[in-house]
Amino acid sequence: MTAHESILLRQDQDGITTLTLNRPQLFNALSEAMLDALQGQLDQLARDENARCVILAAQGRAFCAGHDLREMRATPEQAYFQQLFDRCSRLMQSLRALPVPVIAKVQGLATAAGCQLVASCDLAVAAESARFAVSGINVGLFCSTPAVALTRNLPIKRAFEMLVTGKFIDAATAAQWGLINQAVPDTGLDAATLALAHEICSKPAISIRRGKAMLYRQQMMALPDAYAHAAEVMACNIMDAEAMEGIDAFLEKRVPRWHPTRE
Amino acid sequence: MTAHESILLRQDQDGITTLTLNRPQLFNALSEAMLDALQGQLDQLARDENARCVILAAQGRAFCAGHDLREMRATPEQAYFQQLFDRCSRLMQSLRALPVPVIAKVQGLATAAGCQLVASCDLAVAAESARFAVSGINVGLFCSTPAVALTRNLPIKRAFEMLVTGKFIDAATAAQWGLINQAVPDTGLDAATLALAHEICSKPAISIRRGKAMLYRQQMMALPDAYAHAAEVMACNIMDAEAMEGIDAFLEKRVPRWHPTRE
Amino acid sequence: MTAHESILLRQDQDGITTLTLNRPQLFNALSEAMLDALQGQLDQLARDENARCVILAAQGRAFCAGHDLREMRATPEQAYFQQLFDRCSRLMQSLRALPVPVIAKVQGLATAAGCQLVASCDLAVAAESARFAVSGINVGLFCSTPAVALTRNLPIKRAFEMLVTGKFIDAATAAQWGLINQAVPDTGLDAATLALAHEICSKPAISIRRGKAMLYRQQMMALPDAYAHAAEVMACNIMDAEAMEGIDAFLEKRVPRWHPTRE
Repeated sequence: MTAHESILLRQDQDGITTLTLNRPQLFNALSEAMLDALQGQLDQLARDENARCVILAAQGRAFCAGHDLREMRATPEQAYFQQLFDRCSRLMQSLRALPVPVIAKVQGLATAAGCQLVASCDLAVAAESARFAVSGINVGLFCSTPAVALTRNLPIKRAFEMLVTGKFIDAATAAQWGLINQAVPDTGLDAATLALAHEICSKPAISIRRGKAMLYRQQMMALPDAYAHAAEVMACNIMDAEAMEGIDAFLEKRVPRWHPTRE
Repeated sequence: MTAHESILLRQDQDGITTLTLNRPQLFNALSEAMLDALQGQLDQLARDENARCVILAAQGRAFCAGHDLREMRATPEQAYFQQLFDRCSRLMQSLRALPVPVIAKVQGLATAAGCQLVASCDLAVAAESARFAVSGINVGLFCSTPAVALTRNLPIKRAFEMLVTGKFIDAATAAQWGLINQAVPDTGLDAATLALAHEICSKPAISIRRGKAMLYRQQMMALPDAYAHAAEVMACNIMDAEAMEGIDAFLEKRVPRWHPTRE
Repeated sequence: MTAHESILLRQDQDGITTLTLNRPQLFNALSEAMLDALQGQLDQLARDENARCVILAAQGRAFCAGHDLREMRATPEQAYFQQLFDRCSRLMQSLRALPVPVIAKVQGLATAAGCQLVASCDLAVAAESARFAVSGINVGLFCSTPAVALTRNLPIKRAFEMLVTGKFIDAATAAQWGLINQAVPDTGLDAATLALAHEICSKPAISIRRGKAMLYRQQMMALPDAYAHAAEVMACNIMDAEAMEGIDAFLEKRVPRWHPTRE
């Protein structure tokens, strides 16, 4: 077991890769080591043609408390911070750029860059006792990079309020505002997250991959460009063997025969 | 009655044009014939200076089930699909580009490109028993072009979830998420949709036309450009006889005399 | 007391500047004089390095009923309207560009450009009896410039409906749709608004200023550009004495010593 493996666990089962932040005593802070470990796994998953779906989970009472302030305080130099925030920003964009869906499975606290992790995942399921804040402002450090992800999930006045007050919202509020997809009873968190991951794995991998890439790419395009891109992707997708089989199965009122499936 | 008229009904009354998808046995699928019929009506309405408001309705148990898979399966060629999706995308953009508001009146199922139709209309009223899904993924065909419309209506995590799971949401959820304006009791669907259309027709046509065009045009502009455009449109609008009369009536505490009205 | 001071009151206390629209008999209409008075105060506040937070409030039964139609009717010339709407648009952009947060404190009616004021503030707290509409369409004048602000707060179908119908929504609905942050009992409006302002003033001013500017600037950037900008701002912010002290205090489990505080 390498040093990286000890702070970030990886489990692969049924096509689902679960990455688990495993520094509970440090509230799974995004230390340099943790950033590297996560980036390393995401880079590997980005090249893994067999990857289907990723769950980002955490051990302990916090999902993730953001940057490691103690580590940061040790090198009070702007150039150091610049590369640190760039590195963290690269990690967040890697979640978005990963060819397969990433589900945040959130328990406990998700604060600052920890809340940004949730916002940067494609999907998020949280225990109803989980709480979310972009609380950097409480130490005088406005959560600027988290704001990038937050404003792409929440209505602007909600994001502004969270950022200037640092206040916590509960999981039900996070679901209502669009930060997460679902708040579930704490005891049901594992099951709800796995159910969503299995649902995704039950669809053809190629279709999900084409779709995720297209989705974010078209988002900031003008409408005609967005449609031109989406129509082209869809015309490629339908020529895939999986889509042809899926349509045939639908027309013949039978279950599609896709290989490999997760079973 | 032409072939087109039989699959797409048109009724004009009180300034309101109702287009009704009328292939209930095929769940009003967007076959090539249906796409052509709809496009033809929208092209005509775009040139009709007397048009005030359009209702897009449907006959039968489904509002619209998306593309006609049987028809598509008959020509499994990428070039064919490319032009088909381009044509469908043109239709969706024609709804947005139409000079007058379009209200989707939704009963039953609205799936895949049928859900996209709802998202592409300016307004939508649905029966509370209506259900919505972008379910292409279930046959291995990610709803890429529907995603363009969906992500312009819904928070991103909601859109992502619907697209990768293909799951249905009910009308109340669709209203909460912003896909539709209102979910009403099934027996009140006709009345609620007509009330909204009549409300629109009670305003001066020129003002509504100026407003709709401006609204979507400014949406993706930077703030200063958006304001420059909107201020110019508004300065033209207020010089219209209808606005001058409206302001006079307001100041004189009387009902404005606009011609022609829908009565 | 100048003419401007009489229609727009200003109070400074505990670092909070309260600007109060004070033409209740005219429903605080945005007359030329009111636009000038507001712009003058905002220009001054933009240069005031001691400013921390602004509350935009109003006297009487209306928060603000929009433009002064009687005054406008006196000069029915397009060039006049063009400069009037440009001037009003500049005011709305000045709220967004102000280096410190602006909270709308809303009672009674907020209509047309009055509703736009609410949408243009960074935060908004409203009495539960407050009501909101972009009602220009009722006199034949589509609320084009208000639409710019509205569509940057609300889902598109909600904004469209309000604009073409002119209908009122109550404070609870406004909170649900994202136009305001909070609807509170009428008797609690003062306290809730002040609590939010005090919360903001309890954070370091430099961090709030950096954050607000960054927030809106990154909003329409592509993701990599947004992150590059945010990371740079954050690397500067953390080198501020306030952030270093905040982090030290956090690590030492004590209250940060920031000067000057509002006490």
